[in-house]
Amino acid sequence: MAKIAVLGYGTVGSGVVEVIETNYASIAKRAGEEVEVKSVLDLRDFPGDPIQEKIVHDVDIIINDPEIDVVVEVMGGIEPAFTFVKKALEAGKSVCTSNKALVAAHGPELLAMAKARNLNFMFEASVGGGIPIIRPLNQSLTADEITQITGILNGTTNYILTKMSKEGSSYEDVLKEAQELGYAERNPEADVEGYDACRKIAILTSLAFGSTVNFEEVCTEGITKISTEDFKYAEKLGCVVKLLGTSKKIGDKVYAITAPFLIDATHPLYNVNDVLNGIYINGNVIGDVMFFGAGAGKLPTASAVVADVVDCVKHKGTNVMTVWTSEKMQLGDINDVERYFFVRVKGSVDKNLAEVEKAFGDIDVVEVEGIDGEFGFVTAPMTEKAFNEAAANVDMINRIRLDKTSLS
Amino acid sequence: MAKIAVLGYGTVGSGVVEVIETNYASIAKRAGEEVEVKSVLDLRDFPGDPIQEKIVHDVDIIINDPEIDVVVEVMGGIEPAFTFVKKALEAGKSVCTSNKALVAAHGPELLAMAKARNLNFMFEASVGGGIPIIRPLNQSLTADEITQITGILNGTTNYILTKMSKEGSSYEDVLKEAQELGYAERNPEADVEGYDACRKIAILTSLAFGSTVNFEEVCTEGITKISTEDFKYAEKLGCVVKLLGTSKKIGDKVYAITAPFLIDATHPLYNVNDVLNGIYINGNVIGDVMFFGAGAGKLPTASAVVADVVDCVKHKGTNVMTVWTSEKMQLGDINDVERYFFVRVKGSVDKNLAEVEKAFGDIDVVEVEGIDGEFGFVTAPMTEKAFNEAAANVDMINRIRLDKTSLS
Repeated sequence: MAKIAVLGYGTVGSGVVEVIETNYASIAKRAGEEVEVKSVLDLRDFPGDPIQEKIVHDVDIIINDPEIDVVVEVMGGIEPAFTFVKKALEAGKSVCTSNKALVAAHGPELLAMAKARNLNFMFEASVGGGIPIIRPLNQSLTADEITQITGILNGTTNYILTKMSKEGSSYEDVLKEAQELGYAERNPEADVEGYDACRKIAILTSLAFGSTVNFEEVCTEGITKISTEDFKYAEKLGCVVKLLGTSKKIGDKVYAITAPFLIDATHPLYNVNDVLNGIYINGNVIGDVMFFGAGAGKLPTASAVVADVVDCVKHKGTNVMTVWTSEKMQLGDINDVERYFFVRVKGSVDKNLAEVEKAFGDIDVVEVEGIDGEFGFVTAPMTEKAFNEAAANVDMINRIRLDKTSLS
Repeated sequence: MAKIAVLGYGTVGSGVVEVIETNYASIAKRAGEEVEVKSVLDLRDFPGDPIQEKIVHDVDIIINDPEIDVVVEVMGGIEPAFTFVKKALEAGKSVCTSNKALVAAHGPELLAMAKARNLNFMFEASVGGGIPIIRPLNQSLTADEITQITGILNGTTNYILTKMSKEGSSYEDVLKEAQELGYAERNPEADVEGYDACRKIAILTSLAFGSTVNFEEVCTEGITKISTEDFKYAEKLGCVVKLLGTSKKIGDKVYAITAPFLIDATHPLYNVNDVLNGIYINGNVIGDVMFFGAGAGKLPTASAVVADVVDCVKHKGTNVMTVWTSEKMQLGDINDVERYFFVRVKGSVDKNLAEVEKAFGDIDVVEVEGIDGEFGFVTAPMTEKAFNEAAANVDMINRIRLDKTSLS
């Protein structure tokens, strides 16, 4: 019998308790022994709820309990989660977490602490919710040199963009609806500004390439400037707008960015809609692989956390190797990356095309019936730097990058 | 330094050698030590090829070589592969294989042999080529009770069906073209009759549910009866025809079948085209997850084999647990499964609808312009048994099952 503790009885924490109860027998079969939740740390009490008898308010009760082998951290945020996780590892307990902020900020330090003690620090649920992606990257794609990871990593923004695309609604209206449905937070900044997706691509990039990406160095743009007009142009181009987190290895540099991109029907993530997440990976020998599923939600996320618990129980006394070290990865300068850009400028083709072509060279003009006083175009491939220089010479309304990945 | 031997220098075997050379440094990082091919078993010689110095003609040279830790079996077929793999395990060497015939026929026996000796028997490449699916099922989806696995598991037939769908070509013409391109064997029976997909769904089902499915008991139909007319009806229904291997748990029974199915645009496998494979899994807590990528090909398959080698090297002296036991799984009777059927019958709606409705009850008629002397219809949900009884009373041309799985 393996006993575990859960830090935080919120959405994911209560999901973990539910999954372990629901699938008790099959989990025991998979883990090689029964797995039981012994203690749950929460500031609150839950009178009348069967969980109440397991609730503790002091983390040290868990840390000092020699019966507890594995600690599940699902509190979110950096502190006190970071302190509690370190204490658990120091006390000889493996840790499983869904906390992407913690992993993005302190992953390699916690991995090293676990390794030094023959314990494990696992975080499958920190990226892609229930979708198995951390373990496949870590254990399945080991024969490959990864050349690209591109993902729709945030369910909230994918829901908003899908609704805007399908219903022609405005960003503000869809955000409000998403908040009412509980898909978006009252303060949606972490999602809509791309901060959440940015941490996730930083984690995936670190795992794929073996050194640490500082998420603060990943160029990050949110979806707040995407308008219904942008979607009309997108449709005309046979594209949709998706918030992508992507890192690509070009030469010996890795270039990472989180931003809205236009993608067309040949793109592997074109059909990943609503709150689903999808992650595309290209390796130098495997070629293309894609993973998709529920990127968030109580039970899918809990499923990933509990899979980590099972792995910790199976690997008691053995550290499961990762290649993620604390060595800092020097990301390539995003200004050097060449790509296509979709641009909207004020004016009309008749009056302003010459000026635009003077700045951008050959372009493909896109006009949408009913959108007046402006026109759109797609540039030839150019670097971000060259783009910014050219854009300074035109009266730009908005620009969205294009991602041209397609399945080979 | 871990030394390995490769049994068979065919497509996959030469791919394994190439992958290990190409990604030597990154594989060493992932495995924790360098990995080198010491010997290659083949009946042939390869004069002038650098591999020649590693070629041996006698498997016992490999079996008796104490330096060799891991044996890669990529010969295909049951014998002599089975004998060689047993010898390798008996000699204390872990084994990695891409051989689905061997795994479907003798998987649990070889797993038990490996476990008893603290070795590993791994077979990621036996299903889905490069797509990580065996390891995710075995190690990532461990918190779930699997309720459904549905896959496009054979690249050859998917290529043929995609071509027929997109170009309106006949089965015979596309098969010939696929043979010329090397996508189909000269004797295509294993692919087109569904035998290959059947073994793969048997392996996945055994791994997901923990006991052994005898692949010979899986109801199996190939694609040889699918005609251009069927695709025209399919298009009218907003569907495509795909060869699916699928197993579903209904109550306490698992029902498995390999057959062509009509699927519509909401189906998770609708966009898996050409030689790609895709595998959809539903678990009781994770919900839907999907994996897709190259299901075959020299380097993708070799990538999966080498990932197994890395795992064996990392787990030297430790058996990686699976739940697949030799206990026989009693599959549910496919005749009891309820589903929709698409049917083509001779005659005309005017003359024959009454007779058809007498047999089938309420139906949805489908007619295609230019296809005369017949009409199509989709039945209400009914069991296979009821369908067969009803079909005996009409003049049937063909029938294709519908799979109604959609992403939740």
